[in-house]
Amino acid sequence: MSDNFDRAQILVEALPYIQKFYGKIVVVKYGGNAMISPELFDAVMEDIILLRLVGIPVVLVHGGGPEIDAMLKKLGIESKFVNGLRYTDRETMDVVQSVLCGKVNKDLVATLQRKGASAVGLCGLDAGLFRAVKMPGEDLGYVGEITDVDPGIVLRAIDAGRIPVVATVALGTDEDTPYNVNADTAAAKLAVALGAEKLILLTNTRGILRVLGDEDTLIHAIRTFEIPALRNENIIAGGMIPKIECCAAAVTGGVRRTHILDGRIPHSILIEMLTDEGAGTMVY
Amino acid sequence: MSDNFDRAQILVEALPYIQKFYGKIVVVKYGGNAMISPELFDAVMEDIILLRLVGIPVVLVHGGGPEIDAMLKKLGIESKFVNGLRYTDRETMDVVQSVLCGKVNKDLVATLQRKGASAVGLCGLDAGLFRAVKMPGEDLGYVGEITDVDPGIVLRAIDAGRIPVVATVALGTDEDTPYNVNADTAAAKLAVALGAEKLILLTNTRGILRVLGDEDTLIHAIRTFEIPALRNENIIAGGMIPKIECCAAAVTGGVRRTHILDGRIPHSILIEMLTDEGAGTMVY
Amino acid sequence: MSDNFDRAQILVEALPYIQKFYGKIVVVKYGGNAMISPELFDAVMEDIILLRLVGIPVVLVHGGGPEIDAMLKKLGIESKFVNGLRYTDRETMDVVQSVLCGKVNKDLVATLQRKGASAVGLCGLDAGLFRAVKMPGEDLGYVGEITDVDPGIVLRAIDAGRIPVVATVALGTDEDTPYNVNADTAAAKLAVALGAEKLILLTNTRGILRVLGDEDTLIHAIRTFEIPALRNENIIAGGMIPKIECCAAAVTGGVRRTHILDGRIPHSILIEMLTDEGAGTMVY
Amino acid sequence: MSDNFDRAQILVEALPYIQKFYGKIVVVKYGGNAMISPELFDAVMEDIILLRLVGIPVVLVHGGGPEIDAMLKKLGIESKFVNGLRYTDRETMDVVQSVLCGKVNKDLVATLQRKGASAVGLCGLDAGLFRAVKMPGEDLGYVGEITDVDPGIVLRAIDAGRIPVVATVALGTDEDTPYNVNADTAAAKLAVALGAEKLILLTNTRGILRVLGDEDTLIHAIRTFEIPALRNENIIAGGMIPKIECCAAAVTGGVRRTHILDGRIPHSILIEMLTDEGAGTMVY
Amino acid sequence: MSDNFDRAQILVEALPYIQKFYGKIVVVKYGGNAMISPELFDAVMEDIILLRLVGIPVVLVHGGGPEIDAMLKKLGIESKFVNGLRYTDRETMDVVQSVLCGKVNKDLVATLQRKGASAVGLCGLDAGLFRAVKMPGEDLGYVGEITDVDPGIVLRAIDAGRIPVVATVALGTDEDTPYNVNADTAAAKLAVALGAEKLILLTNTRGILRVLGDEDTLIHAIRTFEIPALRNENIIAGGMIPKIECCAAAVTGGVRRTHILDGRIPHSILIEMLTDEGAGTMVY
Amino acid sequence: MSDNFDRAQILVEALPYIQKFYGKIVVVKYGGNAMISPELFDAVMEDIILLRLVGIPVVLVHGGGPEIDAMLKKLGIESKFVNGLRYTDRETMDVVQSVLCGKVNKDLVATLQRKGASAVGLCGLDAGLFRAVKMPGEDLGYVGEITDVDPGIVLRAIDAGRIPVVATVALGTDEDTPYNVNADTAAAKLAVALGAEKLILLTNTRGILRVLGDEDTLIHAIRTFEIPALRNENIIAGGMIPKIECCAAAVTGGVRRTHILDGRIPHSILIEMLTDEGAGTMVY
Repeated sequence: MSDNFDRAQILVEALPYIQKFYGKIVVVKYGGNAMISPELFDAVMEDIILLRLVGIPVVLVHGGGPEIDAMLKKLGIESKFVNGLRYTDRETMDVVQSVLCGKVNKDLVATLQRKGASAVGLCGLDAGLFRAVKMPGEDLGYVGEITDVDPGIVLRAIDAGRIPVVATVALGTDEDTPYNVNADTAAAKLAVALGAEKLILLTNTRGILRVLGDEDTLIHAIRTFEIPALRNENIIAGGMIPKIECCAAAVTGGVRRTHILDGRIPHSILIEMLTDEGAGTMVY
Repeated sequence: MSDNFDRAQILVEALPYIQKFYGKIVVVKYGGNAMISPELFDAVMEDIILLRLVGIPVVLVHGGGPEIDAMLKKLGIESKFVNGLRYTDRETMDVVQSVLCGKVNKDLVATLQRKGASAVGLCGLDAGLFRAVKMPGEDLGYVGEITDVDPGIVLRAIDAGRIPVVATVALGTDEDTPYNVNADTAAAKLAVALGAEKLILLTNTRGILRVLGDEDTLIHAIRTFEIPALRNENIIAGGMIPKIECCAAAVTGGVRRTHILDGRIPHSILIEMLTDEGAGTMVY
Repeated sequence: MSDNFDRAQILVEALPYIQKFYGKIVVVKYGGNAMISPELFDAVMEDIILLRLVGIPVVLVHGGGPEIDAMLKKLGIESKFVNGLRYTDRETMDVVQSVLCGKVNKDLVATLQRKGASAVGLCGLDAGLFRAVKMPGEDLGYVGEITDVDPGIVLRAIDAGRIPVVATVALGTDEDTPYNVNADTAAAKLAVALGAEKLILLTNTRGILRVLGDEDTLIHAIRTFEIPALRNENIIAGGMIPKIECCAAAVTGGVRRTHILDGRIPHSILIEMLTDEGAGTMVY
Repeated sequence: MSDNFDRAQILVEALPYIQKFYGKIVVVKYGGNAMISPELFDAVMEDIILLRLVGIPVVLVHGGGPEIDAMLKKLGIESKFVNGLRYTDRETMDVVQSVLCGKVNKDLVATLQRKGASAVGLCGLDAGLFRAVKMPGEDLGYVGEITDVDPGIVLRAIDAGRIPVVATVALGTDEDTPYNVNADTAAAKLAVALGAEKLILLTNTRGILRVLGDEDTLIHAIRTFEIPALRNENIIAGGMIPKIECCAAAVTGGVRRTHILDGRIPHSILIEMLTDEGAGTMVY
Repeated sequence: MSDNFDRAQILVEALPYIQKFYGKIVVVKYGGNAMISPELFDAVMEDIILLRLVGIPVVLVHGGGPEIDAMLKKLGIESKFVNGLRYTDRETMDVVQSVLCGKVNKDLVATLQRKGASAVGLCGLDAGLFRAVKMPGEDLGYVGEITDVDPGIVLRAIDAGRIPVVATVALGTDEDTPYNVNADTAAAKLAVALGAEKLILLTNTRGILRVLGDEDTLIHAIRTFEIPALRNENIIAGGMIPKIECCAAAVTGGVRRTHILDGRIPHSILIEMLTDEGAGTMVY
Repeated sequence: MSDNFDRAQILVEALPYIQKFYGKIVVVKYGGNAMISPELFDAVMEDIILLRLVGIPVVLVHGGGPEIDAMLKKLGIESKFVNGLRYTDRETMDVVQSVLCGKVNKDLVATLQRKGASAVGLCGLDAGLFRAVKMPGEDLGYVGEITDVDPGIVLRAIDAGRIPVVATVALGTDEDTPYNVNADTAAAKLAVALGAEKLILLTNTRGILRVLGDEDTLIHAIRTFEIPALRNENIIAGGMIPKIECCAAAVTGGVRRTHILDGRIPHSILIEMLTDEGAGTMVY
């Protein structure tokens, strides 16, 4: 009994956090390790279902790099690189679309369904969700830049109590082709269009560290105006630069808080949202 | 962090229970010790708010014997007894109505409001919720028997996301007076009228014990057809008889499960509803 | 037949008045003699039910001084006075809440129900209707000043075709206690929050008299800018000062017309609203 | 003041009647003298507006014999008669339709609008309200018998708070022509299709008299099963036969009460509905 | 089969036009030859039903000069003329109202109903649709100028999937009489009040011709600012002046495009709306 | 002009067909040649968009055999066969899901979007649309048999004016894997669950021919009870057997009419639905 009393106590302690976020949309960008380890995968799914159930609508935006790479390799398609960036030719794009929208996306949906939630798998082609043009600058093939977001179909899914799962392929408005779009950016733009309360980027890092490699120097919160200085000091560097910029763009677009969370920690989403512990780095 | 991981883990383990009861109405009859001890009082309030927040609408039906007794004593009104039952004369009825509907009821509302919920205090007089006639048999004064329940106002409060708090005074249809009605019975009749999933009676006992005084002999579940035999064996006896009969009537009226819970255990409602531990005795 | 023809004729003559106020909210502050005399009481109830039925929603705000005094006396609680104002200690506040919210309020509801209307008894604690802080200035104990009005629950009751009956107890935001608030002021603030068309204060006077004691000198209408001059002339004086100020505040807040009516005249509300006779004094 | 007190008193005495019919549809068949005398005309319009305003939806079905006759005369069209019944040839039918749907109907609408109500003029052609076939038996030209009533457009007008005014011309389903249909019958069939509470036929008589010409022998109420006997006794005779049959058919179809009222008495509708005086003869 | 393939091909070619106007209101002013020839009449009805069915709501506003003239003649009412304009005395106005609202209007409704559409016949008297005052200037009797349009009843009919058919008689606000109003003007004002996409005036001409009588010189499109010059050049002249001014007023009021179409060509509405051929003259 | 008059004429001739099917759901199973030829593909897309636009909701169910085969070949996965049926191992199932749900499905959505419709790509995993168990009998690996259809998500898409495009992969309820399900069967079961009016199977044949190879002997209509005889006569044979059985099952489940259409004829859907020509074979 005492064990169950503790359980009840913990549930009750989550109360103020649930009240705080009740009815507010949270966009979770899901990728990296958290997607590969079956245990972490289950934890993320459970976190999302729990949030949805306690009245906090979650939209799950996902990438799928490793599964795409695996398929390209099986097909013997070699990736061209332009200035270190992968070039997406037509054949590659077909694989991206198949794997992202057909495999990764629908597998997520199937898992959520099996765990008792109602989920629907969408991509940017559905109901005009994401429209894009060819990414300007260096020619990267079918890599697009999102120009319009029509969140109607996502909002309807939320209203029906469903968890929308979104693959980041967009409808081309300059050419009759789909475009591959960056998942972090797509998540940020969708969060803005939905008037989301929160954007969470699950990553393979603890967040922004003041001293490289020293997790004790984690910066818990960054205001957008502090970003330039932190970049000058090289504290925001490498792969963190585009992520922080996504966060900053979301904040500018009206999302109240954005978070770079460590997807390697099980239940990091719930810990961030329903306990007094701020996990990872918050940009606001 | 590990502490918070455990917390998240516990939240996630509540998931299947929340899914099971999602959107289903639970009527809680609240009285006895759980109402007097400030600590237990807080725990009950938190349990109810949490359930409401995770999508399980709770209706709180309450008595208020001790506060009524205290007021009668202050006023120097002596209670007449008829065959061991208290006689409610007109003056007493006025005190019952004032204290139950004005003090106990609205104090509960104020507490729920302060803890962040939206609550509304109702009694059987409001919008024709309970109608009653004078209790037949021995003359007990203004003690009534409920003849009609119009749950409309309670359902509208639920739809608005509120927690209805109900004092058990009823509109007389035979005379122009309110009647005092038994709170357990009122809760059971309201549960039936609402098509509730569950009726929970909070008491000062562990439940039905096979051997008097030995809590290890707690009977976890009783089917309604087993009640006569258990009464013959004197296992259901004394104050438990009317409670079990309320439960049986509710089950007959379509309430799926009814529970006699120990209100002296903090969070017994949550433990019953969101863990694998069945607390108290279930009648179904 | 001719009698009934006259009746029909009178009903028809009320037509333009009903059309004028159709769908517009009227807040009636009810107190004083009209509440004590059974005959006047019945007339007020009938007026309100008729207005509601012909499509003019009424909100009934009430005091309950005499019943509170009677109970305090029975309990042997002596009232302290501070500069002539009654001090509300904790014990007194409990009595105020019990009698106002539990007895007076629910008795009004029961009467309206018995006469065929649907009514619901609310107080400022319900769904955050009135929030208050301790009245500044002289310490009067648990006497509060309303800081916020959330009329949501009253509007929903109106939408459901019900007559909301409101007791003027408020939720404290500075301390964990309810506050007693002035009923005239509460009615005025509620009228503003509801966007009411009219505020009617039922009193024990004919209205504002130019010559004290001479009812022939009744002033039928006062514009808010005329108030200071009338106070200088001592025409608005004594107990009328706070009432006129309530009216003025309501007018400033957007209520189109406010009325100080003589509650001693049966059906004064209907006479004011559905005939060509302006009863009492109008402030606009 | 005493005069206005009486007025208020009379309004209040109407209360139980308004409550009784609140939200229930009343179909009034309007014709005869009440339509010709300007004073009676005004009284009928006011009765209907008042009922609508106090929440009793009225549907006004009208004939227009005198205006049709006047126009036929002006046009020099002579009426053929078949066994004493007027034969409606094509030219006559055109006049019937023009005068009934264009003049009488829209004049009623204009009057109701000017008196502050919202009204809409419809005929059986609109939205398939009445469908008819040629009246069987003796050839009477374009005289039809209603086969179908689709009350949808009338119900929508009621929902929008409007007073539907209905001219009794029907769409032919056997031929491509409109048919003239009997207004009493049409009113009765519409009352049934609308699930009306009441059907009122305004006539030029006091009702059914036990002794011809002696108004003191007015029969106040007839049950449908008494009709055959009354016909045998010649108490129901002449023009009253089809009217009583309309009433009987309406009662059989589910209309609770039907009334043959004296349209020559001003406000006979209100007197019937909102006083304790039963005017005319009720068939139920 | 090849014939049906062609049919399907043509249907498909209409697709982009249907998509363009989907859900947008089109007001058609119907009069002249198209109303008299049975073949043209059928074609107009079919065009309107088809548009409604493919999701383009049509409102049909009609005149009825020839039928009114015929009736006046039959009645031996001679028309007075004032400066070449017909004077509408009271007797004439009665005929106008009867024929327009009762005959022409309801005949259109009956035809649409028989062809499977749902239609409702309205005039400016219904639900306050058109309000007017006496036309200023030369006394023309009961000829009015529209001052207010309340399109509520038309919008509700559209929402119910019906085709509103509107006769242009208006409620007088200066006198207790209906007024006859110009149908082109009424159509234009209604189009503005409805926020219509298009106003179509069906006429007996090809449109505006640069060279009188030479249809090859049809001007396909006129911008409103070009009108004064075209009037100076006498290209817009005679009966075309008021029509062009209606169009211009509609465009100023927010109607995107207005068209003067040749009602003598069968299906000119469909040809204008669902093919690449612009028929008649467009003013925008 | 005469050309456009013909066009208008043809549009108008489609009117009764549009009226007949207005608001009724049509399920189209799309596969075979019609999916491969770009010209036929465009024609099918246009037919569907046109039907949706004129108010006939279409649900598009598709297969994708050729694209799956191509991908399997590229990946060097050889197909095992069991009694002539392809065995779907886990690796093959992954390819089926990727190509069907990610490529074929979303390409259809993209095309519909580009042509101005609003479409959404779904599969049986989304919101529990199709649930299945392993196909009984011969072990064919991950080939499933549909046990439950929850059409909620498809109905919501229809309500939002969208065209649902459905890939036939189902959620396993016996194992944690998706199953490949037969597209004809899935379309038939979905049609039943949706209460569809029509099921159309696009095939590579003219329909059921009485004499093999002789298209002049096409059987236009078959009643379900005639099927056994036609099978005995070998007129229904080979690949037509399961198709006819799908049709028969749909008819038994309440679908009014089912059609086996020749997908090689452009616009065969429109020809069937909006002309007087019955294309292919109807089973009803």
